Formats: sequence, C-alpha cells, structure tokens
Amino acid sequence: MTQNNFDAFRTRCLARTESTLDEILPPVSVQPSRLHEAMRYTVLASGKRIRPLLAYAAGEAMGVENDALDRPAASVELIHAYSLIHDDLPAMDDDDLRRGRPTCHRAFDEATAILAGDALQTLAFQILAEAPGLRAESRIRMVETLSRASGSRGMVGGQAMDLEAEGTPLDVAMLENIHIHKTGALIRASVQMGIRARGDVVPDHAERLDHFAKCLGLAFQIKDDILDVEGDTSEIGKTAGRDLELNKATYPAIVGLTEAKEMAKRLTDEAHAALEVFGGAADPLRWVANALLERKH
Amino acid sequence: MTQNNFDAFRTRCLARTESTLDEILPPVSVQPSRLHEAMRYTVLASGKRIRPLLAYAAGEAMGVENDALDRPAASVELIHAYSLIHDDLPAMDDDDLRRGRPTCHRAFDEATAILAGDALQTLAFQILAEAPGLRAESRIRMVETLSRASGSRGMVGGQAMDLEAEGTPLDVAMLENIHIHKTGALIRASVQMGIRARGDVVPDHAERLDHFAKCLGLAFQIKDDILDVEGDTSEIGKTAGRDLELNKATYPAIVGLTEAKEMAKRLTDEAHAALEVFGGAADPLRWVANALLERKH
Repeated sequence: MTQNNFDAFRTRCLARTESTLDEILPPVSVQPSRLHEAMRYTVLASGKRIRPLLAYAAGEAMGVENDALDRPAASVELIHAYSLIHDDLPAMDDDDLRRGRPTCHRAFDEATAILAGDALQTLAFQILAEAPGLRAESRIRMVETLSRASGSRGMVGGQAMDLEAEGTPLDVAMLENIHIHKTGALIRASVQMGIRARGDVVPDHAERLDHFAKCLGLAFQIKDDILDVEGDTSEIGKTAGRDLELNKATYPAIVGLTEAKEMAKRLTDEAHAALEVFGGAADPLRWVANALLERKH
Repeated sequence: MTQNNFDAFRTRCLARTESTLDEILPPVSVQPSRLHEAMRYTVLASGKRIRPLLAYAAGEAMGVENDALDRPAASVELIHAYSLIHDDLPAMDDDDLRRGRPTCHRAFDEATAILAGDALQTLAFQILAEAPGLRAESRIRMVETLSRASGSRGMVGGQAMDLEAEGTPLDVAMLENIHIHKTGALIRASVQMGIRARGDVVPDHAERLDHFAKCLGLAFQIKDDILDVEGDTSEIGKTAGRDLELNKATYPAIVGLTEAKEMAKRLTDEAHAALEVFGGAADPLRWVANALLERKH
C-alpha cells in the first residue's frame, strides 16, 4: 500500500468516525442540554482517533467491512473520551488543557464533567449493544472485550495504580505494569474489535494481532512520555512537562530519554513482526503503527 | 402468598444477591487493591437491595428461574452503587454519610471514589455480557436496557437535571420529570431484567409490568423525599434534612407533606392494579411494592 492509499484509508476512517460520533451523541436540543453539550464538547474535539483507526485497520486485516466497525470503533473512542474527562478532574491530574482547549470541568463545571464522563461510558456500551450489521454473539463478545479492557483490571485499574504510585520510586517492570493497564488495555480492545467483528477467526491470527496490539500499546505510551519531555504545549495540545511537575513516573525519568526512544523502536519492530503472516492486508495496521511512533503530538 | 412466604422469598433473594456481588467483585488481594477495597466497601455495605429484589420478583411473575437472574440483578445494583459514590462527591451532593457509614470519598479519597464508581459501572456491563444461563440475545438486550436506563437520557440525565434545577423554582411536572429519570429509569430496568430473561413474553404482559415499575419508581422517590423530612439520620443511614439544606426540590416542599403521602399511596395503588392479570405469580412484586411504601428508612 502506498502513502496515498494510506492517506485515503485514514481520511475515510476519520470521516466515518466523526460522522458516527456525531450521530450517536445526543443533540444539545435534547434535555439535559448542558450535559449533552459537555459530552459533545469533549468527544467532538479534534482527537487523533487512534483507537478507531486501529479498529478499522484490524478489520482490514481480518477482511471485515468498514461499516460493521463504525459502532465498535466509536465505542472505544467514547471510553477513551470519558477517561480523559475523569483523569483531568481536580481530584485526579487537575489539568486545565486538553486537545488545545479547556478541559471539560474547566469549560463547564466539575459536577457536569463527572456526569458527562459517566454518561459517555454508558453510551459506549449502549452503541455496542445496538450496533447494526453484527450478530448478537459478536456484539456481546465486544461488550465483554470492552468492559474487561476498561474496568478495574484494565484501564481504570491502571489509573488507580498510577495514582497510588505517585511519589514512590518505580522500576521499569512496575511502570510497564501500569501502562499495560492504563493505555495498553484499550489499544488492545481497539484491535480486538476488528477480530470480534468476524465469527471465524484462525486462533493463531487472533493471537498475532493481539501481540501486535500489546507491543504497540506500550510503544505508544513510551512515545507519550517522550513527547511530554520534548514536545511543547501548543503542539501536544496539553500542558507540556505536566508529568514532571506531578512527579509522575515516566520512561524517560526511569531509563533516560535515549533508552526510552530505543525501547519504543524495539517494540514497534516487534509489533511489525507480528503482522508478517497477514501480508498486504495488514498494511493499514503497519501504517498506524509507524504514524504513532513518528508523531510529533 | 403469606407473609412467611414473602420473608422466605426476600431472604433467599438477598442471600443470592450478596453471594453474587461478593463473587463478581474483584478480591482486595488483586491489584489495584485500594480500588478493589473501595468498590467492595461501597457495594457490600448493607444496602436494601431493592433493585435486585425487583428483578427476582419480576422473574417470578414471568416464570423465570432465580439463577438466570443472579447476574442481571447484581448488575443493576452495581449501577446503583456507582451512582451513589459519584452522587456523594464534593462536587455533587457533598455528603459524608451513606448507609450509616462514611461515604466512599470520605473513607478513601476523591480520586479513588471517582475511579471506584467508574469501575463499578464497567463491571455491571461485564457481568451482564458474561452472565451464565442466558442466550446471547437475552444478554445483549439486557445490556441495551441497562445502558439506556442509566445513561444521559436515563439516570445520569436525571442527576444532571437535578443539579441544574437546584435553587430554581420547580412545579410537580418538572420534579416528576427529574425523578422519572433519576431513580425511575433504574427501577424500571430492574423489572425489565425479569422480562428480558425470557424470550417469549406476551407484549401486553411486558407493558403491564413496565407500567407497574413506572408507578413504583415514582412512589419510591416520593417516599424517599418524605423520609428525608420525617426520618432521623440514624434510621435512614444518611444525613436527614440534607435535601432541605441543599435547597433541593422535593415533593413535600412543592405539594406539602400530606399531598406527597397521598400521591405515593395513589401511585402504589396504580402499580398494584397493573399486576392483576398475573394472579399469584406477581405476589413477590406486590410485597416489594408494599414494603417500599411502608419502609421507615
């Protein structure tokens, strides 16, 4: 697949994602309007839509039609958006800026932000349950996948570990354990959506895709930590140096910047190796992986 | 059904509920342990378990086996528990006492309480997705029912309306609209679980049960408002007079205590009328309805 093909794939998937999110989010004209405004404010802010892209790209590797993945891809993005709202709250990371705009609780208020996050999580499961073009068996396995990835043994568990770890010295293994949960679980779930949309997956193929997603998730987080050190606020859309300020454990802080970059590169290579068996069908996944490692924000 | 039979039914359902909740909540020995401790602290506090009781009682009316309803009944209770945690937060109702014990954010901390609530919501959908003894089609319809009842057009929407209404004068219709969402939607979902567990429901029967649930949900909320005025803190397990203190709109405040009691009675009568067609099979529902109206806490 050429760069042009990739750009076309990306543009098509992003358009599908924005249109699905706009469609499934309740309009502001529906009561309670302030709550719906807060939900739309956060979700429709120009995010990178990495998780939906991964879901569509995994679907390509599995030979799944794009439209079967519209709701599953959007559901992962909703979980991601809700976690950002709650993560930014004063009692958590207390951040004022997200995606270049005031965070939800700054633009609205704390109570509305808590409820908007809550309702976005609920909506993620609702749109999976009601996803058209998928059998009940596929939809229920998607609900299972997404809930396991985002609960106390997944994403939320990672956030809790992260909070508990603040101010205590961590080694690489402990940091990795946090990130496998905090960001890795949802990255894996995104790829799983592409697998779950198909009934008849070769187990070996499912395992390889999952291994790809595991490596990519970790590389993604390391890159995020690197950007917090090297990026500037206007480019990354959130407050640069915030991790350092909060005394958060990051890869650059523990292993140094050079080794952190090496680790991200090694994991990306391993991710690519897991895709070999898929041939050209995995090109969209390869492209997303490269784009994540090379991104500037 | 005699009072003895009712007591036996209630005792059996409560035992099933406690045992299911204990089983599905991650143990404190699993990381992150503080998060899991907070989840267990809130859920396993001696709640009245009204929603699980309603699910089992609706199941009886539908001829559904108890064990098919263990997970669905627990899932509604998890949603209820998560909403209490978030509702009690300083940015929301800022309450220190719940079920006679410190609220989750007082016993732990705000960040942990936010995450515990989030994870309990996720767990509710996970246990529905993985509920044994139910077909995929039933499970997915339960996820749909529960998500619609608890999202921005259901429970969370009602909480948002409630917050927006603080300090503004309300009439009975506006107050009713808040409560139909805030507490009514989840009461209806509880009864729906009993319906959803069966594949072959007569539409008229489903509608009657739903009408029962609608009337009961409103009667339940009016009774709650009455108890906030008449009850004392030790008996109701939360701070008495708190609604008045927060200047919240309540039925006694708007229509007066006597009329509020009359309304609760009329709604309970209407709820009972909706059950007539079910004969003795609806006795557990009748008993739960009476118990709710006559409760002292």
